[in-house]
Amino acid sequence: MATAVGRLPGPLAGLSGTMSEWQERVEKSPLLDFADYCLRGVGQVCLMNNPLTGVFILAGLFVFDAWHGVAALVGLAVSTLTALLLRFDRAAIRAGLFGFNGLLVGAGLATSLGPSWDGTVFGWIILIAAFSSVFHAALAAITMRAWGIPPFTLAFNFATLMFLVGALTFTHGRFGLAHDRFGGVVAPSEPEIGGVDPAFFAVSGDSQAADILTAILNGIGQLFFAEDVVAGILIVVGILFCSRIAGVMALVGSAIGMLTGLAVGASGAAIYHGLWSFNSFAAALAIGGVFFVFSSRSFVLGVGCAILAALIFGALTSFFEPWGLPALTLPFCFATIIFVLLRYATPSVEAVEVEDITTPEEHLARARGARSADVGRDRVGSLEPS
Amino acid sequence: MATAVGRLPGPLAGLSGTMSEWQERVEKSPLLDFADYCLRGVGQVCLMNNPLTGVFILAGLFVFDAWHGVAALVGLAVSTLTALLLRFDRAAIRAGLFGFNGLLVGAGLATSLGPSWDGTVFGWIILIAAFSSVFHAALAAITMRAWGIPPFTLAFNFATLMFLVGALTFTHGRFGLAHDRFGGVVAPSEPEIGGVDPAFFAVSGDSQAADILTAILNGIGQLFFAEDVVAGILIVVGILFCSRIAGVMALVGSAIGMLTGLAVGASGAAIYHGLWSFNSFAAALAIGGVFFVFSSRSFVLGVGCAILAALIFGALTSFFEPWGLPALTLPFCFATIIFVLLRYATPSVEAVEVEDITTPEEHLARARGARSADVGRDRVGSLEPS
Amino acid sequence: MATAVGRLPGPLAGLSGTMSEWQERVEKSPLLDFADYCLRGVGQVCLMNNPLTGVFILAGLFVFDAWHGVAALVGLAVSTLTALLLRFDRAAIRAGLFGFNGLLVGAGLATSLGPSWDGTVFGWIILIAAFSSVFHAALAAITMRAWGIPPFTLAFNFATLMFLVGALTFTHGRFGLAHDRFGGVVAPSEPEIGGVDPAFFAVSGDSQAADILTAILNGIGQLFFAEDVVAGILIVVGILFCSRIAGVMALVGSAIGMLTGLAVGASGAAIYHGLWSFNSFAAALAIGGVFFVFSSRSFVLGVGCAILAALIFGALTSFFEPWGLPALTLPFCFATIIFVLLRYATPSVEAVEVEDITTPEEHLARARGARSADVGRDRVGSLEPS
Repeated sequence: MATAVGRLPGPLAGLSGTMSEWQERVEKSPLLDFADYCLRGVGQVCLMNNPLTGVFILAGLFVFDAWHGVAALVGLAVSTLTALLLRFDRAAIRAGLFGFNGLLVGAGLATSLGPSWDGTVFGWIILIAAFSSVFHAALAAITMRAWGIPPFTLAFNFATLMFLVGALTFTHGRFGLAHDRFGGVVAPSEPEIGGVDPAFFAVSGDSQAADILTAILNGIGQLFFAEDVVAGILIVVGILFCSRIAGVMALVGSAIGMLTGLAVGASGAAIYHGLWSFNSFAAALAIGGVFFVFSSRSFVLGVGCAILAALIFGALTSFFEPWGLPALTLPFCFATIIFVLLRYATPSVEAVEVEDITTPEEHLARARGARSADVGRDRVGSLEPS
Repeated sequence: MATAVGRLPGPLAGLSGTMSEWQERVEKSPLLDFADYCLRGVGQVCLMNNPLTGVFILAGLFVFDAWHGVAALVGLAVSTLTALLLRFDRAAIRAGLFGFNGLLVGAGLATSLGPSWDGTVFGWIILIAAFSSVFHAALAAITMRAWGIPPFTLAFNFATLMFLVGALTFTHGRFGLAHDRFGGVVAPSEPEIGGVDPAFFAVSGDSQAADILTAILNGIGQLFFAEDVVAGILIVVGILFCSRIAGVMALVGSAIGMLTGLAVGASGAAIYHGLWSFNSFAAALAIGGVFFVFSSRSFVLGVGCAILAALIFGALTSFFEPWGLPALTLPFCFATIIFVLLRYATPSVEAVEVEDITTPEEHLARARGARSADVGRDRVGSLEPS
Repeated sequence: MATAVGRLPGPLAGLSGTMSEWQERVEKSPLLDFADYCLRGVGQVCLMNNPLTGVFILAGLFVFDAWHGVAALVGLAVSTLTALLLRFDRAAIRAGLFGFNGLLVGAGLATSLGPSWDGTVFGWIILIAAFSSVFHAALAAITMRAWGIPPFTLAFNFATLMFLVGALTFTHGRFGLAHDRFGGVVAPSEPEIGGVDPAFFAVSGDSQAADILTAILNGIGQLFFAEDVVAGILIVVGILFCSRIAGVMALVGSAIGMLTGLAVGASGAAIYHGLWSFNSFAAALAIGGVFFVFSSRSFVLGVGCAILAALIFGALTSFFEPWGLPALTLPFCFATIIFVLLRYATPSVEAVEVEDITTPEEHLARARGARSADVGRDRVGSLEPS
């Protein structure tokens, strides 16, 4: 069966892939079902429709910081609930597609607003997470209808940037001290970072190999605003449950982002903190296996997309400097949209239709099945009179 | 008859709704016909296709300031004439859809450029108003073809911002003193405004209730750059002639904008001057009755859209600060486009097709008629063999 | 034959129009064929699908500066090769549509980065030129599918601006001294330029007529970042080989840009250097003959589009000032897209379908042929019973 493809062996089989049997089982209990939507929403930040991936990622967020985890959970639940209340497409809600933007809103505002455990901050998370679902539905109407591709995390980006730039005008939305977690790190003018030095490893004092690994794992965690090596490991393990290809592409993408940062001479500290990597990680994963069937050619495109995401990160970071805004995941969105659009421009990679997306392993198996079926049909065809 | 729906009682009937009999009567006289296009164009700023609404709004502009009114009239006539000369869609011109952008260009440039009654300023109004019609036709080709929704006042915004930001480079387009009418008021850094103080009522010294009412009516007038309580009242009266639902939603939207400004801790003076309200007034009116059939659900969406418009106002005001540019009606455009796009995402509100838009009252009557017809058809259908 | 239309007389006939016989002849030699793609790509910067036009333009670039010419050639070859490697549409590659963005990337980076003949600069040109082909394929998928119009030079603009703004963050992409060739010239605050003075002719000390001609020809060369009168003459001669109408519209457009700059009171030096002209030159050429059949009405639209391109140039130059970025050819793209979209809004000008675009002369001949055929058909039709 196609559903068995890409599963882990033995007792882990039911926890890998998209866990469709699990989904059928929890459907009867409204509460479990809602939890399943939410957990899939966590995984969907990196395009993994698997609740167990979500559990691992959430564990990573709580390991990083409990307040961060709670804020992300609130955003996740609010955006999913908003979609249910507004009666958006149930299949999309079930797949977690109205949860990932809210999760990122929660994590992003917890990072940029202070203090922790604050009522006003909770209020903003609830409001902006609710709007993120409205934005996502509207953006999907545009991008799906016009280009046949999803709006990725654009809704999170637009809603969060709307708040962050607005907060320069609002008094009740003032940035807390946490704001520095975005700020200056990226700016090349800070002399104490030693931007030019390609030996960014000086930052930690550890061995070079350890620093490279730290930067790559920080880059994984940073997609969720969680700069933490353990969080990074937990996220990769979660991804591996859903897809081995995706897990490898995540690490490859994060490394490519780091290398691009080094190659262009970016601030060593920014690279070490994973800021050049998180967009590239998601971009490589999206192109190399999810939106295109995995192959040596889509791997190369995935690497190209990861480089582009890193370059756009540098560009947007400079562009947003007058307002002190972070680039968030806009670089991932722009780079990935550009490369997914290549499906209309070249036959050299095999595109996966958006409605058929499950896991890279299943896409590969389906593509091989279709090809052998074609061969079979051609053989039969050659025997028939034309 | 459907055309009688939503009319005022007795002798006022002919002056309410879309005044279609009047339109047929004036069609024979080219001059009266052109005046009718223009007056409907005034009403279309707030989506009211009624020449009498236009008369009331124009009266409000002249009450506010004669130069302001003349500048708006010039922009209105130029943009309508441009559309006629370029042979754009006659039905759209007749409905005033090539007038509203020009009117706003005239009013906007009269507000931002000085001195009054100046030849250079008239020259700019004529040029930019003419381009606003070209922009509107181009934008409509994009938004109507791709998304099935109109471009609202985007043409006015793009043409005016192109001029305003360009004027920082042009010598002959320098801002006059009038520029301050946009400027600092919104900036939170000005200490004399007392931004934090939720008691923005301190601004005028009047009673709190009077101040609230003033802010709401200022917010109505500000859509036309006319901060004036009498202008606000005249505009609401004009809207009420066309639609009672729209008149109520206008006041509700303006109040929601004011409350959102207070809730986020915006500058009290900015709120008092109606700057947080005018986008919300138009947004609530568009969603609660015009683009969706009026219902408790579309009312809630209208309120949500008004909140969003206010948040986007805060965001764009901060974003534009490096250039000292105003947000104009971009917040209304963005918020309303997002909410109108929800027609593709949810069956819980009933969308009105763009070509069928008349007045909220007629939409409601048509929807009720269709529903009872459906019931009738279903009953008949159940008697027939399937 | 239609292919003979718009050809120069006698021995020059084979070198004018789109040189289709030449294309068929070189097809057999892969190297000559590739050179043909590239040369057509040079001409396509100003919408001329003719390799000889490309030769003249390249000659102009080398006359201006050898390093500039080599950098442009590298960008041209890399972007064309990238399209071949990624197996983009061969017909588009053959028409030079994957070359013009790369050429502009090479010329643009040679202008903004220093020093000349530098390995790092070559590296950046190769990387950004390769991405420009990816961008163009993705943008074409959007604009052709949604609006039926090509993305013009948007890919060059986005890729180059991504690099230029990013270079504020990258250390290894630091601007060299050459950056000043974009900079301050346009800024109105520089007192030594004497912005207000409409007598911009004071800049050179030559006669007024010579200065006007210099400004117009500088404006032609500036489209290729080559401010040089001889380069301007060579480019115009190259265009004339392909199309006489286009050559005249190029000069008219450049003059309109200059006049618009004078009318709005822009910096005299900026006008003299052709900065107000190059976008207008390409815009007038695109509207007056290429995208609309040449007529008195499309001529007027072309003039309007040239004025708009100049106004947008002023606007974007101010908008980009906080980052010190140039407007590049974005003004041409925006103005031309707006005017090409009018094909959906008015029957008063005859649009040319994108896939049927060759030369203005051929469009005119085809339109006349179609009209006389219509007349013939109508006559025949009137004899038949209806």
